[in-house]
Amino acid sequence: MAALEFLLQHTDTNSGARAAKILTDHGEILTPIFMPVGTVASVKAVTQQQLLNDVKAQIILGNTYHLFLRPGMDVMQAAGGLHKFMGWDKPILTDSGGYQVFSLSSKRKLTEEGALFQNHINGSKHLFSPEAVIHIQRKIGADIIMAFDECPPGGSLYDYANTSMELTHRWLDRCIAHFETTTDLYGYTQNLFPIVQGGTHHDLRKLSCEYIASKDAAGNAIGGLSVGEPIEKLYEICALCCENLPVNKPRYLMGVGTPWNIIEAIALGVDMFDCVMPTRNGRNGMLFTTKGVININNKKWENDFSPIDDGIDCELSNYYSKAYLRHLIVAKEILGLQIASVHNLAFYLDIVTKAREHITAGDFLSWKNEMVIIWQQRL
Amino acid sequence: MAALEFLLQHTDTNSGARAAKILTDHGEILTPIFMPVGTVASVKAVTQQQLLNDVKAQIILGNTYHLFLRPGMDVMQAAGGLHKFMGWDKPILTDSGGYQVFSLSSKRKLTEEGALFQNHINGSKHLFSPEAVIHIQRKIGADIIMAFDECPPGGSLYDYANTSMELTHRWLDRCIAHFETTTDLYGYTQNLFPIVQGGTHHDLRKLSCEYIASKDAAGNAIGGLSVGEPIEKLYEICALCCENLPVNKPRYLMGVGTPWNIIEAIALGVDMFDCVMPTRNGRNGMLFTTKGVININNKKWENDFSPIDDGIDCELSNYYSKAYLRHLIVAKEILGLQIASVHNLAFYLDIVTKAREHITAGDFLSWKNEMVIIWQQRL
Repeated sequence: MAALEFLLQHTDTNSGARAAKILTDHGEILTPIFMPVGTVASVKAVTQQQLLNDVKAQIILGNTYHLFLRPGMDVMQAAGGLHKFMGWDKPILTDSGGYQVFSLSSKRKLTEEGALFQNHINGSKHLFSPEAVIHIQRKIGADIIMAFDECPPGGSLYDYANTSMELTHRWLDRCIAHFETTTDLYGYTQNLFPIVQGGTHHDLRKLSCEYIASKDAAGNAIGGLSVGEPIEKLYEICALCCENLPVNKPRYLMGVGTPWNIIEAIALGVDMFDCVMPTRNGRNGMLFTTKGVININNKKWENDFSPIDDGIDCELSNYYSKAYLRHLIVAKEILGLQIASVHNLAFYLDIVTKAREHITAGDFLSWKNEMVIIWQQRL
Repeated sequence: MAALEFLLQHTDTNSGARAAKILTDHGEILTPIFMPVGTVASVKAVTQQQLLNDVKAQIILGNTYHLFLRPGMDVMQAAGGLHKFMGWDKPILTDSGGYQVFSLSSKRKLTEEGALFQNHINGSKHLFSPEAVIHIQRKIGADIIMAFDECPPGGSLYDYANTSMELTHRWLDRCIAHFETTTDLYGYTQNLFPIVQGGTHHDLRKLSCEYIASKDAAGNAIGGLSVGEPIEKLYEICALCCENLPVNKPRYLMGVGTPWNIIEAIALGVDMFDCVMPTRNGRNGMLFTTKGVININNKKWENDFSPIDDGIDCELSNYYSKAYLRHLIVAKEILGLQIASVHNLAFYLDIVTKAREHITAGDFLSWKNEMVIIWQQRL
């Protein structure tokens, strides 16, 4: 089985946007792409059948921290990896768990060795080190696995960001060493992506990009953004990273964002995205649609029997009315969470698919400038 | 449009079981049939697409009490009735709301006029009378609507059960009078089913059956069972009611029960069933399968990668493993509620479908006697 391939198909002449094809042992991914987040071996409230047929997901993301705790690695390995465990035969990417150790665990201590933490479910203690998270991700068996990094808070000062970045780089070397001395467990090839850090400091980001690029990995990720910095800063750093990361490798912007954030980052040269926003906000009744943003809890939708969104090709979005979905969300019916989650994810997949079409057609920039205004409207 | 028709197709020679076809303006129902409960315009955690394709539901039930409170009758009428509101084009049955007034409302007062209550959501006060619940059910627009009855607690003494039954009979007359002086709102025919009461007292039940039968309604229901009485008493009273209700009308046993309860009641001559058990118990991890009962929370399923149930024709039951479903339920993932609910409902629909086949084939009784043992096994 072969390592991941990145085939650049079209580069926009008016922006940094590109259309490409990523080949993995679990099939191809057409980029730009959005990856639904399947935290604990489930994209919340969505069946794998709906992911395939309604959302039209091409790749999903799993969280190493959550999977390590539940179902745990014994079950994961007995199942033959995450694909088989959850019944998802297309590509999967796992994060390294670092972000969750810092955001979720009740206690954690950071050392050169790694991060010692007490988990948020039953308080048991664990060490996540570069070697440990590679070991765990081998057992999970995602097609793309991530290096262990430290993600400093938004607005970190230069010295902290610098120290943190250097630690991330040393951890990267240990990740690569461990990755290269271990093998795939399930007969298909895993690919390790390193992560650029450096906070909001240009020279650190540039240094980090150069360091990461020198590893010649199958793809590269931009971490440490969407963590509290102003949105202009996010675009500025994202642009800088895209300029300093290899052209012939996929670029993955981690944890971003709204539909308009995504489309702007595509214009800067990003190929891959993930975010919990479509599912999390969907569960709270916030819907992203082709006509703008809807808070379905508002009384104005009570008697609106038009489809949730007839502008995308998703059976649930076309079939159920705004009034019905509002009723379900207000009455706290589980079905409301399902429909809202499927719709929002289908919308996210629709926008990256359309972005790809417009990149190929050559009118991406004007389309993007029109869409970011429409999508942000509050209906 | 025409009133409901009941076409008896096969009567078992060894038991009271029958196979029939019910024709409604929203299509036909093959009996015996189980009706999934769609409390607040949603069968909990199940999409209408899953109800059709996976569960293979032919008719679902809505709860008048819940629908009256949410979304309320203004929205319901603006939508054009419950079928259009929720996107369900097959038959629907609504209960009268009486049972929920007594089990859910925080305060209620029973008089000859009806039941005055404070609802359990925001405490607003309402009167449910025979006229009011017919009026509400006209607005909901179910194909089959139920008379307003009082359901005495299990084990009620003779005098209480008698007084209650007589009130139910007087309320029935008022329901029929109001039903006959009002019309269908949405261009298809609604049918009113009266309800037999009388507690566990043979002569009262017989009296009630005769009274109910004298109304010559399109179908008849047996109420006031599965409310705390011993299971032998339930079968005994159910048998008595089946013997004393018309042969040429559907018989509906309300709120029953386990798969083995249902199959035993089919043997006594019941045609229609509803119960929250498959969805409610499913959400707690109790699965009914063709091989027996599973508590999916048990550690014994942690590494069982076999399908949830390969004995029924349901994509989700065949696709997902016991280990995966256990993980989802233990991790409190919404997807676990969905899969368990769809599976249990599909199993309930499977058993009534197979019962029908065995009634037609003439070997229903021996099949039933074999199945009730298998289905009750704790796996």
